[in-house]
Amino acid sequence: MTRRTVTDEDGAIYEFTPDLEAVATVESGAELTIETRDSLDGAVQIESDVIESVPAEVNAATGPIEIEGAEPGDALRVEIEDVRIAEDRGRVVSIDGFGLLDGREEIEAPRTRINHVADDGETIAFGDLEIPIDPVIGTIGVAPADESYTTLIPHDHGGNLDTTDVTTGTVAYFPVFQDGAMFAVGDCKAAMADGEMCGTGSEIACDIDVTLEVIDGGADDVDLERPLLETEDAWKTVASAETLEAACELANRDAIELLAAEHDFDATDAYLFSSLVGGLEISQVVDPLVTVRNAVPKAYLSSPF
Amino acid sequence: MTRRTVTDEDGAIYEFTPDLEAVATVESGAELTIETRDSLDGAVQIESDVIESVPAEVNAATGPIEIEGAEPGDALRVEIEDVRIAEDRGRVVSIDGFGLLDGREEIEAPRTRINHVADDGETIAFGDLEIPIDPVIGTIGVAPADESYTTLIPHDHGGNLDTTDVTTGTVAYFPVFQDGAMFAVGDCKAAMADGEMCGTGSEIACDIDVTLEVIDGGADDVDLERPLLETEDAWKTVASAETLEAACELANRDAIELLAAEHDFDATDAYLFSSLVGGLEISQVVDPLVTVRNAVPKAYLSSPF
Repeated sequence: MTRRTVTDEDGAIYEFTPDLEAVATVESGAELTIETRDSLDGAVQIESDVIESVPAEVNAATGPIEIEGAEPGDALRVEIEDVRIAEDRGRVVSIDGFGLLDGREEIEAPRTRINHVADDGETIAFGDLEIPIDPVIGTIGVAPADESYTTLIPHDHGGNLDTTDVTTGTVAYFPVFQDGAMFAVGDCKAAMADGEMCGTGSEIACDIDVTLEVIDGGADDVDLERPLLETEDAWKTVASAETLEAACELANRDAIELLAAEHDFDATDAYLFSSLVGGLEISQVVDPLVTVRNAVPKAYLSSPF
Repeated sequence: MTRRTVTDEDGAIYEFTPDLEAVATVESGAELTIETRDSLDGAVQIESDVIESVPAEVNAATGPIEIEGAEPGDALRVEIEDVRIAEDRGRVVSIDGFGLLDGREEIEAPRTRINHVADDGETIAFGDLEIPIDPVIGTIGVAPADESYTTLIPHDHGGNLDTTDVTTGTVAYFPVFQDGAMFAVGDCKAAMADGEMCGTGSEIACDIDVTLEVIDGGADDVDLERPLLETEDAWKTVASAETLEAACELANRDAIELLAAEHDFDATDAYLFSSLVGGLEISQVVDPLVTVRNAVPKAYLSSPF
C-alpha cells in the first residue's frame, strides 16, 4: 500500500468538536505520513521571540482525518511507526499565566530558549548541554462525544495529552465518538520531561508515520471510555481531570476494569493487584486539565480488543 | 569492618520526633544489617486476618540509630546495599478509610490477600499470578526538626515515603535535623506499584544492609531540605505535601536548585531545562501526605555533596 501524506496545509484544527469536517478520508488500515507544524505555529524562531500569553490558537493538530467505517462505540487503533523531526530547531518557553511554577518570583516569563538540532540529528542543544532527541506527540485524538475542547485541553477524546509514551513504537487507542472518528495530531516535541513542568517541551515540527485502523465495538471485552496506550512493555490507561488525584482515580479505575476483565478478579482484587505492579505515572501537570497514566506490565494484560 | 545487626527487637518507633532516644550508636561509615518487621506487626497472616481501620501504630521503623558526629545542617548518606525478604509471605490489604478508591461501592474494605513467596524466593503469588519480588523500603528517615510525624506520614525528614526507588542499589540522602541524625527504617514491601493505590504494597519483613555516613554540612553546594535519591541512572528529589500538585512544585523546585547549582543556569533556565529531561514521578497517593519525585538523569547532574 502506498503511504499517503496528509499535511497541516491540507488542514489543521485548534479545537476538537463533535462536528468536525474531514480534510482527508482514508480506509481502515491506511498507512499515512502526517506532517505537523510546531505548537506555536512558527512564531518562535529566535530567543527574542517570546510568548507573552497562551495564544488563543495553539497546538495545531493536522486533520481531521476521517476513517471509513468508524462508528460510535468502535475504537480507533493508531500505530505510531515513526516520529521524525522536520526542522532544525525546537523551542522551550515560559509563558506568563502557565506552567507548574507560574507566578513564582524566581521564574521569568516570558522567556524562550532555542534548541538547535545537531548536525547528526541525534541531539538538541540547551546552552552547552546536549539532549537526546526522543520525539513526543503532544496532541492526538478524535472528535469528542458532546462537548468541544480546544487543542490545549486533554480529555476522554485524547487532545493535549502531552504524554511521553505517545511516540515511536507505541499503539494508541481512542474511543470513537463520531462517524469517521475524525483523527487529528500535532504539537510534537523533540524532547519532553514527564510533567512538562514549564508548560512546553522542545516544541518542533514533525512528520509522523501511522497506521489507522478501526476496531469494531462489538469485538471488545472492554468498553473504551478514554485513551489507552500499548507500549513495548505495558498497557497504560490515560486519564485527564481537574486534579492529579482525580486523574489518578480515573486511570486506576480503568486499569482495574482491564485487570478484572482479563483475570478472574472482582474490582477489589484487581485494585489490590494494581497496587503491586507497574503503577501511576505523571504525563503533564500544566494543561487546563492534568493527565496521569496507570501502567500495567504486559505480563498481566493482553489486548482487550 | 564487621557488619553489625540492629533488630526491631532492639527498638522500633511509630513516630519520628525531634527528641528520639537511640537504641544503637554507630560511627559514620558503619555497615549495618537492620532487621525490620512487616508494617502490620505480624497481625495479618491469613486472608481472614483483616484490618478494619488504620492502626494507631503502623509501619514500625527499626531504630533510632544514632550516627556519631552527625549535626544539624549535615546530610546523612544511606547506601542501600541489599533488601532481603525475611518471611514466607507478604500481604496486601484494603482498609476502610484508606486508599485511592476508598469509599467507592465496587471496592470492598477490609480485605486481605496473602502473597506466598515461591520456593525459589524469586516471586510472590497473587491468586494464580506470579509477581517478581522487587523489595521496596516504605518508611525511612531521621528525627525531624520541630514537629513530630507518625510513621504513617512522609515529610522533609523522610518517614513514610513509599517510593519504589528506595531499594537495593539506591543511595538515599536525608537532611540531619538533630544530633546523631537518629535514623530509623522499616515498612518494607515484596513488591509495590508506583502510587501504592490500595494503601499497601505486599507488606513483608525484610533485612536491610546499609552503610550510614555523615556528610559534613560545610561541604555542601546545596542545602538539603528534603530527601534526595541517587539511583543508577538519576538523581531524584523527593517531596511530600497535601496535594500531588503541591508535591510536584516542591520536587521541581528542588531539582531546579540542583540544576542551577551545577550549571551556569538561573532558576528560569533550570526550570525550562527540567521540562526536557527525566521528570515527575508518583511515589504514593494514599498516605496523609502524598509523595512525588523529580528525576534528573545523571548525565546532567553530579553529586551535590
